[in-house]
Amino acid sequence: MNKLLKEHLVVAQNASGRNMNVPLYRFVGEKPGPKVYIQSSIHGAEVQGNVVIYQLIQWLKTLPICGEVLLVPNCNPVGTNIKAGEYTLGRFDPVNGTNWNRGYYYDDAFIHEFAQSIDDEESTESIKSRFRQKMKQQLQARLSETWGIGLAQHLNLKLQQLAFDADYVLDLHNGPVSTRHIYVPEYAKASASLFNIPHVIFMPNVFSGALDEATFCPWWLLTDLVSSKRQQPIDFAVEAFTLEMGSQEVISFQNGEYDAKSILTYLTAKGCLPESSTLPEQMSRKAVTLNNYKTLFTQQGGIVEYIAKPGDIVKKGGVLARVLNVDNLDTDRATTDILAPCDLVAILHFPSASVLSGTQLYKCFTEYFELQ
Amino acid sequence: MNKLLKEHLVVAQNASGRNMNVPLYRFVGEKPGPKVYIQSSIHGAEVQGNVVIYQLIQWLKTLPICGEVLLVPNCNPVGTNIKAGEYTLGRFDPVNGTNWNRGYYYDDAFIHEFAQSIDDEESTESIKSRFRQKMKQQLQARLSETWGIGLAQHLNLKLQQLAFDADYVLDLHNGPVSTRHIYVPEYAKASASLFNIPHVIFMPNVFSGALDEATFCPWWLLTDLVSSKRQQPIDFAVEAFTLEMGSQEVISFQNGEYDAKSILTYLTAKGCLPESSTLPEQMSRKAVTLNNYKTLFTQQGGIVEYIAKPGDIVKKGGVLARVLNVDNLDTDRATTDILAPCDLVAILHFPSASVLSGTQLYKCFTEYFELQ
Amino acid sequence: MNKLLKEHLVVAQNASGRNMNVPLYRFVGEKPGPKVYIQSSIHGAEVQGNVVIYQLIQWLKTLPICGEVLLVPNCNPVGTNIKAGEYTLGRFDPVNGTNWNRGYYYDDAFIHEFAQSIDDEESTESIKSRFRQKMKQQLQARLSETWGIGLAQHLNLKLQQLAFDADYVLDLHNGPVSTRHIYVPEYAKASASLFNIPHVIFMPNVFSGALDEATFCPWWLLTDLVSSKRQQPIDFAVEAFTLEMGSQEVISFQNGEYDAKSILTYLTAKGCLPESSTLPEQMSRKAVTLNNYKTLFTQQGGIVEYIAKPGDIVKKGGVLARVLNVDNLDTDRATTDILAPCDLVAILHFPSASVLSGTQLYKCFTEYFELQ
Amino acid sequence: MNKLLKEHLVVAQNASGRNMNVPLYRFVGEKPGPKVYIQSSIHGAEVQGNVVIYQLIQWLKTLPICGEVLLVPNCNPVGTNIKAGEYTLGRFDPVNGTNWNRGYYYDDAFIHEFAQSIDDEESTESIKSRFRQKMKQQLQARLSETWGIGLAQHLNLKLQQLAFDADYVLDLHNGPVSTRHIYVPEYAKASASLFNIPHVIFMPNVFSGALDEATFCPWWLLTDLVSSKRQQPIDFAVEAFTLEMGSQEVISFQNGEYDAKSILTYLTAKGCLPESSTLPEQMSRKAVTLNNYKTLFTQQGGIVEYIAKPGDIVKKGGVLARVLNVDNLDTDRATTDILAPCDLVAILHFPSASVLSGTQLYKCFTEYFELQ
Repeated sequence: MNKLLKEHLVVAQNASGRNMNVPLYRFVGEKPGPKVYIQSSIHGAEVQGNVVIYQLIQWLKTLPICGEVLLVPNCNPVGTNIKAGEYTLGRFDPVNGTNWNRGYYYDDAFIHEFAQSIDDEESTESIKSRFRQKMKQQLQARLSETWGIGLAQHLNLKLQQLAFDADYVLDLHNGPVSTRHIYVPEYAKASASLFNIPHVIFMPNVFSGALDEATFCPWWLLTDLVSSKRQQPIDFAVEAFTLEMGSQEVISFQNGEYDAKSILTYLTAKGCLPESSTLPEQMSRKAVTLNNYKTLFTQQGGIVEYIAKPGDIVKKGGVLARVLNVDNLDTDRATTDILAPCDLVAILHFPSASVLSGTQLYKCFTEYFELQ
Repeated sequence: MNKLLKEHLVVAQNASGRNMNVPLYRFVGEKPGPKVYIQSSIHGAEVQGNVVIYQLIQWLKTLPICGEVLLVPNCNPVGTNIKAGEYTLGRFDPVNGTNWNRGYYYDDAFIHEFAQSIDDEESTESIKSRFRQKMKQQLQARLSETWGIGLAQHLNLKLQQLAFDADYVLDLHNGPVSTRHIYVPEYAKASASLFNIPHVIFMPNVFSGALDEATFCPWWLLTDLVSSKRQQPIDFAVEAFTLEMGSQEVISFQNGEYDAKSILTYLTAKGCLPESSTLPEQMSRKAVTLNNYKTLFTQQGGIVEYIAKPGDIVKKGGVLARVLNVDNLDTDRATTDILAPCDLVAILHFPSASVLSGTQLYKCFTEYFELQ
Repeated sequence: MNKLLKEHLVVAQNASGRNMNVPLYRFVGEKPGPKVYIQSSIHGAEVQGNVVIYQLIQWLKTLPICGEVLLVPNCNPVGTNIKAGEYTLGRFDPVNGTNWNRGYYYDDAFIHEFAQSIDDEESTESIKSRFRQKMKQQLQARLSETWGIGLAQHLNLKLQQLAFDADYVLDLHNGPVSTRHIYVPEYAKASASLFNIPHVIFMPNVFSGALDEATFCPWWLLTDLVSSKRQQPIDFAVEAFTLEMGSQEVISFQNGEYDAKSILTYLTAKGCLPESSTLPEQMSRKAVTLNNYKTLFTQQGGIVEYIAKPGDIVKKGGVLARVLNVDNLDTDRATTDILAPCDLVAILHFPSASVLSGTQLYKCFTEYFELQ
Repeated sequence: MNKLLKEHLVVAQNASGRNMNVPLYRFVGEKPGPKVYIQSSIHGAEVQGNVVIYQLIQWLKTLPICGEVLLVPNCNPVGTNIKAGEYTLGRFDPVNGTNWNRGYYYDDAFIHEFAQSIDDEESTESIKSRFRQKMKQQLQARLSETWGIGLAQHLNLKLQQLAFDADYVLDLHNGPVSTRHIYVPEYAKASASLFNIPHVIFMPNVFSGALDEATFCPWWLLTDLVSSKRQQPIDFAVEAFTLEMGSQEVISFQNGEYDAKSILTYLTAKGCLPESSTLPEQMSRKAVTLNNYKTLFTQQGGIVEYIAKPGDIVKKGGVLARVLNVDNLDTDRATTDILAPCDLVAILHFPSASVLSGTQLYKCFTEYFELQ
């Protein structure tokens, strides 16, 4: 059966001078195969992924794998433990506002340079292996900087050292109040239907700091460079996704089981689970390109009832939310309706009823289409 | 018809040196009658009361009243506007941790002294009027202190100056994740069934700083002192309640209408609404004395699924919550069930899935009984 | 020489499910003698006490003691590690606003009851020993509560279990921006001059939740009860102090050495350091009773220059601070001076230039007198 | 004499639904001349600039100007009013971590396109005027976005609408614990010596979101494009600077006067103050290019004494800071010295004694040189 290796990775030190570490659960199959990396809770309030990993671990105790599956729950021991009032201030470093999911490494120039080093004979496996090695040297160099690096970036690079070894990388997140959705790089479009997730965002080859991008952008660019040089497609078979599995600040063991199964379905299709034959569910899957995944900001402050629920389809002009203004309760300006600017699917909304102007009220699919 | 007077009361000044004020909506009936005072959102994240007041205002535009109804929504302009992450840090002053609902004034000695000034002939109306006048002098003296007073206390006293004029005082709150419940002073037990609220906590004559207590404790003690002196009961007909109308950080216009009706029902019974004949709903109302309204604290930290929902009846030994420990996902210590220490009704639970040890996980009715 | 025993005490568990502990440094002398307990940083931003304990440890490596000295630096591993912006939010639990130094145990009734158990023959030593034992049973009972207890209270009781064994208890704090001052119970007035601290506050026998009070109040009351019963004074020789050693959010190894020496001077006088002959410094020591240690609150919001520095003597009408109002920079209301309401010594002031109305601007000695 | 026009600009709405506005003080001279824009406190805890503006206003009441000076103190009414503990959480939006000084507008493509519209005959004045008009259309278009924009960006764009009209733009900031320093675009190198500021950072033509860059980058690029096209230099005479005038969270009226004078000296040199003849002070001015202005991050957590003070010159290997580790107070790992990695000037350090690993401990000039 699979072997389970368990260790802890130090990623920071707190103000008491104590190490803060991350648990690593590494399942090694008896047979060779692809490597899988799954982490959760880089944003400290997005905790459902930990339950998904718990459920995956229950499966992997008995379900043989080919290759390796590395599971890293609660991968941000700092962000998980910052309370501000009753809630977890998990999205950014409370000291400086740095988003915990924006400090991964990517360097366009490095990849171009590496591509130069590939001759036409080199096998895909050899390229992959050399690229990983070079990339990890880059990561190590940054981690060893004389002047040091920031807390969030240090955490990100330590995790990226683990993730960059993998062929399949899943970063488990939650939205504020949210329905399930997944970010999929355009080149891996076919994999979108391998998960049981009804809302899909297709990502271009643009890096803005997140783990999925830090994984797929280098391989994507390398693929393009080598393919173009060789005049024939090369396929590194590396994929990376951000999965948003419902709302932050709540967990559900039952939902966790559902999402674990969805991930097992994907891994089955990728040949990681030789004895599994689970197939993706039949469901409507709606998709958008990233530029059509839009944020609706409030124009005014007040108290809000969220009328459109995550997953709801709203027609142009339909009511998304109703804002109460306490200074005008006796007039017809007591309430203002916020309307859909176009046909849309409400994917997530802000988690508090109190908003200032300029608040991200809803994120919506516009110009969406059905996946086949 | 009722007259509506609208003004703003300055209660603080912010760091920009600008006044922060509270809107006052005062309905004055054509006929004399009792005074009613209703405020909401002294805890800044507990915003549903503003919707209830909005709905009350819609009613009071056409429903004649006797006496006066003073409505004070969003009564804490500081607490309403402190964000810490996406949520509102509304329960305490972010500077010093002072609970916004613990700085009202009560002075046992002052009431004993006042009671001395009452002779056996003085009418109930005269006592009420003199007591209010003296009490407001006390409040003004504190507000005029040479050395000043703290922000929360200043806010509380400014509101108490308004509330102490009233015969019926309702302070509208929400729990974290909560079912409807109401705090009722024991002497007003009969009024518990006049609201459409299924969970009732009976309060003793003990002051711990909140507005309801700051209202009923003085009158209760005065009642006892005069009754005992005169050897016959005196009734000042003053009542005060804290209504907890569901969960913080969400609003619902529909629920607001339900709770507005519930309040109108109470006011109807008290003779404030001569043309209303609305009666309380038939429902099971469970009650406890305050000492049996218990808080269950966590013994460990971790991530929690709240299995018992607010309002659920749980038998001794039943599962309330399940805690996940990320360092033991592969062992049988991965999850720990938190069990009901006795038969109970879960009234509210903590609003975040992430808890440290010593967190107020649930508040529960124990030794509860059915109200008739 | 002294023996050093080092261990860690678990006091909480964080949201990752991990133990949070406090380091204990216990020096045991070769000869018997009194027990000393010194803790620091119960308020997480007040870190200078940790340096003082560091300096004490350097001394105690070579300076023989009688009895025991237990040093507990960084005694609040939760509060030390909550950042909100660049500063440490160390004064209260960020979840609920509970001051970390208000949850120690004291029960008047328990002490009266215990006093009943003392017969006229019982020796002082025996009473002390039995009282400590009973008290620790009380603490254990609270820590073992079926329904649990809150995080701050749990921490406090765990520390109190250690502190209640001691004869001399020092709780090391800092003010916001502050000069050195010390809280001394009135019965230990004579000890005020044994420290090198120029400002002294004399405390009455009133418990409001802090460690010093939780130590001296029980012994004080017991002393009074037994003395009164026996018609002759009994002396338990237990003393407890809160030392405020300058400002929060800064440390200085040099100041730490000064304050360590001051504590060694006290311990020398108390017979804990047989080979030390250090004597208190000659200095002016100003003192007040607690009711004359007054807080000046702002009446307005704005930006403040603190003109009176901690330690400054200001005459009635002298300028303490100047407030800038950004909306009136062109008028003579641009600045407002805040004046001393009476002759005073400024002991500490608020640490931020931005204040709302109702901010604790200064704490001041009024009606102060010179200690002889 | 100068005319003073005073108004308020609405920049946001809070959760009470109330407008939040910024005071504008506009001095208009009798004679034409350049326009000056000075704002302060975009970071809410950096309040000294408000005092500088106060002092400037006192001067401008009697000192004639040519052209216009627009002064915008406290330009961030949201950030100024977020307390987290006693300090102001002023650097980023507490909801999402967005730095308040990173959302100004710059679009390379727009400038290239505009440059195309300039023919060889067009006068500098005409180009300036048209460019401003077009730029303001761009800003307005963003502010009018159907889907809205975020709070910080909205604030930034509203201010930029004012600032882009000006020839001289000064953004007044403070460091955490800091000495005076100034950011100067390389093309305006000559102006570095016109201020009384001893530390100068030369900025390249790279936009990263701040107001100074949002001002000088467009003009710089336009200058380059037109100069290159016309084969002769064009000079738009627009300059923009960020001035860091000491430490956040404190104000000093005396320092404010010093810095106001420094600004008047600059404006005198630029011909804005025809009756002023004030000259810059003789002083050593040290300068670096931006890439040599380095941040030293902590490698460990603990409690820190900042031994190098802002402005101190430290040789390679010199001690910058000493870190205390509370778990090792009895060993020689109790303290760790943090050493200068090279010769440097310490410009600013972190404002709290408690640090995690990855904290920005110091920002330092390296490879610095003396300005002539």
